[in-house]
Amino acid sequence: MQHKSFADMHCPIARSLERVGEWWSMLIVRDALRGARRFDQFQKNLAIAPNMLTRRLNSLVESGMLERRRYNERPPRYEYVPTERAHDFRPVLWMLLSWGNRHFAPEGRSVVIVDAQTGVQAEPIVVDRATGRLLRSPDFALAAGPAADAHVRRVYGAAGGSDDPATEGVRVRAKVSKRRSRSH
Amino acid sequence: MQHKSFADMHCPIARSLERVGEWWSMLIVRDALRGARRFDQFQKNLAIAPNMLTRRLNSLVESGMLERRRYNERPPRYEYVPTERAHDFRPVLWMLLSWGNRHFAPEGRSVVIVDAQTGVQAEPIVVDRATGRLLRSPDFALAAGPAADAHVRRVYGAAGGSDDPATEGVRVRAKVSKRRSRSH
Repeated sequence: MQHKSFADMHCPIARSLERVGEWWSMLIVRDALRGARRFDQFQKNLAIAPNMLTRRLNSLVESGMLERRRYNERPPRYEYVPTERAHDFRPVLWMLLSWGNRHFAPEGRSVVIVDAQTGVQAEPIVVDRATGRLLRSPDFALAAGPAADAHVRRVYGAAGGSDDPATEGVRVRAKVSKRRSRSH
Repeated sequence: MQHKSFADMHCPIARSLERVGEWWSMLIVRDALRGARRFDQFQKNLAIAPNMLTRRLNSLVESGMLERRRYNERPPRYEYVPTERAHDFRPVLWMLLSWGNRHFAPEGRSVVIVDAQTGVQAEPIVVDRATGRLLRSPDFALAAGPAADAHVRRVYGAAGGSDDPATEGVRVRAKVSKRRSRSH
């Protein structure tokens, strides 16, 4: 089945889905992040048809989510290792997990996120890195960014902020009292 | 095209994708959260084939993401209003957006999240609601929840925490110094 491509769209959500939005793709990434490496492992976990799995793995390699590595010379055998880009996708999966637990788990939670050391259950929420404020509507909204074209500007209005990707790995330092610092 | 259903799987990620994982579905939800209501609006925004749009809208109504409301009697006309479940999906979309901006925006960011009042750009990160700690691996991990069956327990090991859905709407109160409170 040929899909219309989302990659030409300027929306970063559409572009993300172009890479991981195919049926099965996110579950393959989930399993790779959980330690699955080999074709047979993915196939067993997912009960997916082999030709479909091959297509999805190739597509995820193309998207830079998985790296294909030969682990056996004769016969040639490959494994699929999640890249940094795939590891960076984990928060998306955790938010999906949390949403699924809230809405589609009538019998209770089957899988939860826990503190790896204490086992205490965690509840993921999305906050702004710099201020720690809960990222919710209408407090926060989408806006045209610095690279927006005319169409995006029409849809979203004025551009917002600078194109400054926040530094990775900074720990959140949230304070309810400290509202909006105009640091940009 | 008939897909294998993910709904039978116990994983909450799979169950979520069962509802929003079809090609187009998340972009329709995105547009609905941005204010689109009517068939023609979705069609124009997405340049999607009408029969496909009809299928996706029906499927999102079934999943409880959109509510179908008649806004005109003769001829009958309907609009699609995002439900609470759809609004609760916004953090997932914002994390997808942020990931797309980091990985698939070589020309710069076209769409960004901003403080609606000040226009200052925000950077979404996922933290634990109770402690404010950055939710990342290996500090946090998946574990079998209270409703896990034997298969999930085999995959994830011991159960974690109680089945206590965190209270909605609580503001984050994060402190770096305050690590892991064993409140459960």
